[in-house]
Amino acid sequence: MDHHHLLHYLSLLVVMLAGAKIGGALLQRIGQPAVLGELLVGVILGASLLGWVQADDEIVTLFKELGVIILLFEIGLETDLKKLLQVGGVSTAVALAGVAFPFALGYGVTRALGHSDIVSIFTGAALTATSVGITARVLSDLGRLQDPEGQVILGAAIIDDVIGLVILAVVSGVASGPGFSPLLAAKTAGIAFGFLAVTLLVGRWLVPLVAKLLAKVTLPGTPTILAIIIALGLAWLADRAGSALIIGAFAAGLLLRELPQHEQIEKGVASLGHFFVPIFFVAVGAAVDVRAFNPLDPAARPTLLLGGLLVVVAIIGKFAAGFVPFWFRGNKYVVGVGMVPRGEVGLIFAQKGLDFGAFTAPMFSAVALMVMVTTFIAPPLLKLLLRPLPKQKSDTQGIEDLVVGPEQKASTAAKGEA
Amino acid sequence: MDHHHLLHYLSLLVVMLAGAKIGGALLQRIGQPAVLGELLVGVILGASLLGWVQADDEIVTLFKELGVIILLFEIGLETDLKKLLQVGGVSTAVALAGVAFPFALGYGVTRALGHSDIVSIFTGAALTATSVGITARVLSDLGRLQDPEGQVILGAAIIDDVIGLVILAVVSGVASGPGFSPLLAAKTAGIAFGFLAVTLLVGRWLVPLVAKLLAKVTLPGTPTILAIIIALGLAWLADRAGSALIIGAFAAGLLLRELPQHEQIEKGVASLGHFFVPIFFVAVGAAVDVRAFNPLDPAARPTLLLGGLLVVVAIIGKFAAGFVPFWFRGNKYVVGVGMVPRGEVGLIFAQKGLDFGAFTAPMFSAVALMVMVTTFIAPPLLKLLLRPLPKQKSDTQGIEDLVVGPEQKASTAAKGEA
Repeated sequence: MDHHHLLHYLSLLVVMLAGAKIGGALLQRIGQPAVLGELLVGVILGASLLGWVQADDEIVTLFKELGVIILLFEIGLETDLKKLLQVGGVSTAVALAGVAFPFALGYGVTRALGHSDIVSIFTGAALTATSVGITARVLSDLGRLQDPEGQVILGAAIIDDVIGLVILAVVSGVASGPGFSPLLAAKTAGIAFGFLAVTLLVGRWLVPLVAKLLAKVTLPGTPTILAIIIALGLAWLADRAGSALIIGAFAAGLLLRELPQHEQIEKGVASLGHFFVPIFFVAVGAAVDVRAFNPLDPAARPTLLLGGLLVVVAIIGKFAAGFVPFWFRGNKYVVGVGMVPRGEVGLIFAQKGLDFGAFTAPMFSAVALMVMVTTFIAPPLLKLLLRPLPKQKSDTQGIEDLVVGPEQKASTAAKGEA
Repeated sequence: MDHHHLLHYLSLLVVMLAGAKIGGALLQRIGQPAVLGELLVGVILGASLLGWVQADDEIVTLFKELGVIILLFEIGLETDLKKLLQVGGVSTAVALAGVAFPFALGYGVTRALGHSDIVSIFTGAALTATSVGITARVLSDLGRLQDPEGQVILGAAIIDDVIGLVILAVVSGVASGPGFSPLLAAKTAGIAFGFLAVTLLVGRWLVPLVAKLLAKVTLPGTPTILAIIIALGLAWLADRAGSALIIGAFAAGLLLRELPQHEQIEKGVASLGHFFVPIFFVAVGAAVDVRAFNPLDPAARPTLLLGGLLVVVAIIGKFAAGFVPFWFRGNKYVVGVGMVPRGEVGLIFAQKGLDFGAFTAPMFSAVALMVMVTTFIAPPLLKLLLRPLPKQKSDTQGIEDLVVGPEQKASTAAKGEA
């Protein structure tokens, strides 16, 4: 890397981090979640407006992927598997309905507008996967991640991700030749679930060994860096095993939650998250090309029409899915709205549609519009439905402060008095 | 970045971080500083042995530079400017002698072996600049950064860096045509010192504003990220102003030390440092090509002879400089040894020598040998001269635990009891 390049990326990091912080603080000030500000700043910095952040840049991509890996790792660290299994039936019902409804509606709308079968399948598929990152971040900002609704959404979004990987493999198969294969579908699903299961089983036996090892090493920062090594390593392994990076990162979080050092790890990882995660959200925003939505441009109108219809069915489909588990006694509106954002997952589908030649550029933009609106609409709606829990947020605490135990609270109090 | 590339870099980060941790822990176990293990692991992973880490890779370079920026920022955060100015005369004497002696000796030896004037000037110049990173890390690991000797070394190394920049500009000028220019030399020096002075003056007025702003924003992690933004921004600005990245990062640390939130910032930045700084040391090690030092290869023997002589004069030159401030009553052996490591700065000189066509590949390797040996010899020697101060190192604390105040110590005690 020559010196000029290096300076470019340093200034890019400064702009992305500063933009994310300013956007987040401004949106928070007008009562909206910070993540919405980070996404909007991404749109402004992105290719279609200022052009400072190229979403397909090598280094932006690497930082973005490190961001989503650390985010899912943090979510894993915060996820109480027992609680998640308690809401397992509800989550599964929400996830399955939340895949079926939007797929059927998206396929129908696209077909009705005269598009081909394969285009309609890709569009339907792009409507299926919930972006766990956005909702989890909003719930976390509101202090609601541990509520039953939060756990249902988290569980459903994770099941969704797995189903999303299966659908992606299936439609890629349809588009690239061999056609639909129930075997491939079953295999992809099996790998994702199998990876989580094997990781947790092997981990139950490995974690005590890691804890012993950690107790012997006195180098500062060792627990945090060991945790990051395991998160990156499992993300890599999950991908190599035929699943997704985020599945591995999430599994690493679930696993390391069992370590006696997990509070130290949460604090250290939170600092890394404060650096990498906003870069992820800015990069997601930067991928959106707003020029495809100019209503004054006649060429943009079919895109706007299809995009508008996709937005409507995307919201209705996921919202309705929230009401499918009729036996769940929590707030079904929160669950329905929490499932709405598509984020990066929808964009990955749209990108694959382009890669396989199924999508034209306007089709891509229509899906991007759906992704953007569903992503942008969910945080303020969630915020309306849920008041933040009254708690004092300290500047040094990240989302980890949702899981502090009574001992730690006592020590924090002692610190305050000292 | 395609998916294959992404997976490659994820696995590379895992290998570098895990290697650094394993190397650090092993060397610490046999009573050596951890940083030596990180460097050795870098040599093993580097181009000349395993070939896994390419020191000139775009992304490795960016992470490495982020590592050295965060390292110098942390050192700035820990540097008490008042203390540094108290030892200023001693530091300046050590720095000036530590530039003059090695330059004269290196020039003489190279000339005596029949090399040209310009080659000898570059070689002499490569012997001048102390690598503050290695020594500061060792002193910090030993809990001795706040000792008078530690402050003298730190101050001298910083003055050294500034003088190094001037010499680099001057020899580059000699090599590229216009020849030696006292004006250019004065200008380069003026910019580096001027940058530090202006930053501190403007900062004294800006820091209270930043503190007020921070008090208003309740987003978690804001102080740490704002600090990182300022560190990266000042590094960029220093470079654009004609000085060096590390000068800007160090200035940012000096500045933000004045913030009331500086303890939170130190903790957050330490976590980022645990991630980025070992990557820097592994990458420094990876740049060394050990094949040029094979004594069985006749072609390597002149390189070994010159390299060996350079090692001797590099050590004698800096060691002698430690005794120049005769009025200093601290341990002059510690100061002399602390100035010995050249690290990345020497390699930058060697790289520039190659760039300007003054150096052949064997010349480069001879300078690399000097850099490697001086870097590797200083930590164990320092460790012999200084026993570590008795203190309990907690895993979550980084080098920031050298500056904890009595209030924080009380709260740590309270935490232990809770």
